[in-house]
Amino acid sequence: MSESGPPSRLRVGLLGCGTVGTEVVRLLLAHAEELSQRAGVRLELSGIAVRSLETERDPVVPRELLTTDAEAVVAGSDVVVELLAGVQPARDLLARAVAAGTTVVSGNKAVLATSGPELYEAAEVAGAGVFFEAAVAGAVPVVRGIRESLAGDRITRVLGIVNGTTNFILDEMTREGSDFADVLTRAQELGYAEADPTADVGGHDAAAKAAILASLAFHSRVAQADVPVTGITDITPDDIEAAAAMGYTIKLLAIAERGDGGLAVRVHPALVAHDHPLAGVHGAYNAVVVDAEAAGTLMFYGAGAGGRPTASAVLGDLVSAARLRTSGARPPVESRYAALPVVDPATVSTRYLVRLDVADRPGVLADIARAFAAHDVSVEKLRQVVTREGAAGLVLVTHRQTEAALAAAVADIAELDPVHRVTSVLRVEGS
Amino acid sequence: MSESGPPSRLRVGLLGCGTVGTEVVRLLLAHAEELSQRAGVRLELSGIAVRSLETERDPVVPRELLTTDAEAVVAGSDVVVELLAGVQPARDLLARAVAAGTTVVSGNKAVLATSGPELYEAAEVAGAGVFFEAAVAGAVPVVRGIRESLAGDRITRVLGIVNGTTNFILDEMTREGSDFADVLTRAQELGYAEADPTADVGGHDAAAKAAILASLAFHSRVAQADVPVTGITDITPDDIEAAAAMGYTIKLLAIAERGDGGLAVRVHPALVAHDHPLAGVHGAYNAVVVDAEAAGTLMFYGAGAGGRPTASAVLGDLVSAARLRTSGARPPVESRYAALPVVDPATVSTRYLVRLDVADRPGVLADIARAFAAHDVSVEKLRQVVTREGAAGLVLVTHRQTEAALAAAVADIAELDPVHRVTSVLRVEGS
Repeated sequence: MSESGPPSRLRVGLLGCGTVGTEVVRLLLAHAEELSQRAGVRLELSGIAVRSLETERDPVVPRELLTTDAEAVVAGSDVVVELLAGVQPARDLLARAVAAGTTVVSGNKAVLATSGPELYEAAEVAGAGVFFEAAVAGAVPVVRGIRESLAGDRITRVLGIVNGTTNFILDEMTREGSDFADVLTRAQELGYAEADPTADVGGHDAAAKAAILASLAFHSRVAQADVPVTGITDITPDDIEAAAAMGYTIKLLAIAERGDGGLAVRVHPALVAHDHPLAGVHGAYNAVVVDAEAAGTLMFYGAGAGGRPTASAVLGDLVSAARLRTSGARPPVESRYAALPVVDPATVSTRYLVRLDVADRPGVLADIARAFAAHDVSVEKLRQVVTREGAAGLVLVTHRQTEAALAAAVADIAELDPVHRVTSVLRVEGS
Repeated sequence: MSESGPPSRLRVGLLGCGTVGTEVVRLLLAHAEELSQRAGVRLELSGIAVRSLETERDPVVPRELLTTDAEAVVAGSDVVVELLAGVQPARDLLARAVAAGTTVVSGNKAVLATSGPELYEAAEVAGAGVFFEAAVAGAVPVVRGIRESLAGDRITRVLGIVNGTTNFILDEMTREGSDFADVLTRAQELGYAEADPTADVGGHDAAAKAAILASLAFHSRVAQADVPVTGITDITPDDIEAAAAMGYTIKLLAIAERGDGGLAVRVHPALVAHDHPLAGVHGAYNAVVVDAEAAGTLMFYGAGAGGRPTASAVLGDLVSAARLRTSGARPPVESRYAALPVVDPATVSTRYLVRLDVADRPGVLADIARAFAAHDVSVEKLRQVVTREGAAGLVLVTHRQTEAALAAAVADIAELDPVHRVTSVLRVEGS
């Protein structure tokens, strides 16, 4: 698709025309003049690949540009905007585009979470750019933040609320003391959760984003399959209340950090302190905290989904892609100088909150303290509570421990006579 | 300074070597290999201009590069990093650099707040880039966010906590109920406030950053002199308590938004709702909320000052500048297609919190309600409080009003017999 000299127009090919694609078309046409000035070249929609020409569409979508031939759209574009769902045919189409030196803008987390690093490499070889702000946390500009703002720094940890559905549910549970199931039903009625909510509440959507962010932040190869996941379905109002009593809020977090000998990536519900910036992220909003050696703690916050916010991220990338192409510059390099191996997150030590149902009698505390001490687990704070059923409960927060040490201590404690039940074990993150 | 073909090394000239400059040197030398890989070219410190060679310096600074001849450093560099204080000689040196086509990275808010737009224009004409992430809110990547992430969108408002000293003071006052003077003294002891705190607590530092952000976000010419300022010296514990009782936190905000017929820019203490993301910004942290038509509300959060965080922002810019230069690309264009005139912020309508000391007797409320109604000011919520001195107080929040309408109503109310005093009038922002 190369031409010599700076082109006077840039042919933008769109793959997929769902909610986000339609908003991209709307904004591209409505703000054509402004966008062209910012991009330094006229942005011209050259083709829109869709699965079926029969589907009813928003009148803003120009019918004459619709085609079912996605390969022809790729071949006839200077920049490809890919907004398909799922891995295939997106992966093959993107591979074909970058191999031809065509810069791509993708909002497809599935393909990047499985094949991102291969794609970035192929693009680098061919001198094409790969932009994907819209694939992680909608409009939240964390991809550009990691790639460019922190290009002179070393990232040590990424900690993100990257799924709006689960944040909405946990936030409502926290505000109202309601059960998970009740809030899920309401979220479904309000359109914040899908009819089949598994991908969200099971943490799988967050895991895909964790893989993309980890690959980017640590210049390493992390696929969604490398990310162990725990969802939020087991979180109870008692967990939330116990966390609040100790000064914490429960959030579903996607976490990537340097562990012993490599990169530990995981998704699970975790406690964050009330004064941590992630604790102030309410409703369906997303936010990603990035810790770097020199910069310290940065946070990027915004709408994590929705047609218009995600389209804004796509257009920001499209302007960057256009500037790159018209200037004849080489795209930013995603060198693999770090290339950390992915290690078991159990090797990372964190603090834990442990909640126990116990017999209300003297000596219980001493027995429990002894069991923790036997495994070198030291307790930072402890509080007696009364559960919703009126039973005696004990909530404690440990200092940093490996998962192995904590699990061994908890197993012993569960065997103690006055301990009726270990109600929950949750990680504390962000400190 | 032009050479033909991509250079194998990039000569980086540093103007100023204070706290931030020293950290830039440290990181440049310590991470030389990594930075060169990311930049695609070897970054080589070619000269460091200082005011005096006699000053004692950190041993990391190479003595042989020190010179008092700043013009020679500019002439001998491919990229100039300017970290001087104050407008001159920084302005002349930057003008000289960009006129010669040399890209500059500046962390100097004074020069950008007075002469930014002229500098951007001169640079554009000469094909040089101007990067200035470090000049606004330290490591917070809001400049790149506005310039690039939102390049495909239309910004409607910028709302920022851009001064760490005042946020620290207000946060402590909120947490402890202490007086401004007491917390200021403590902030000075802790090094969070200068011996002469006027620039910070008077809002002038925030005004400089407001001018820079407003120019950038709205592609317009805004100088610090265009920004009306109210500082935080008059904020009392009673103000903070009254705000909290109505569901708000008091923050010093830099605000730029489209008003009637132009751009309204201002700095003043304001109330933000407890669930607004800015309410969760504690201590000396900075954060900027950017509202855009399609993206909705984004927030950028991080350390607003400090040698290392600010140096991280400088190095991120330096990597971008190096990539730009080695690729031979033209720098991003800051076109003036919007060029909004700066208008009086009094033309923007906002909500207000009004606090009154009143006589505790029947009919007071009716009198006050009548006075507001006479000026078409409608009251959204109202609460009776008891002041710290035990007197009867009334706190109310209005719906959106122009400043003129509100001022007229408040003037009438102050004349009412049962109203002892109008204690404070504060704006409510962020809704």
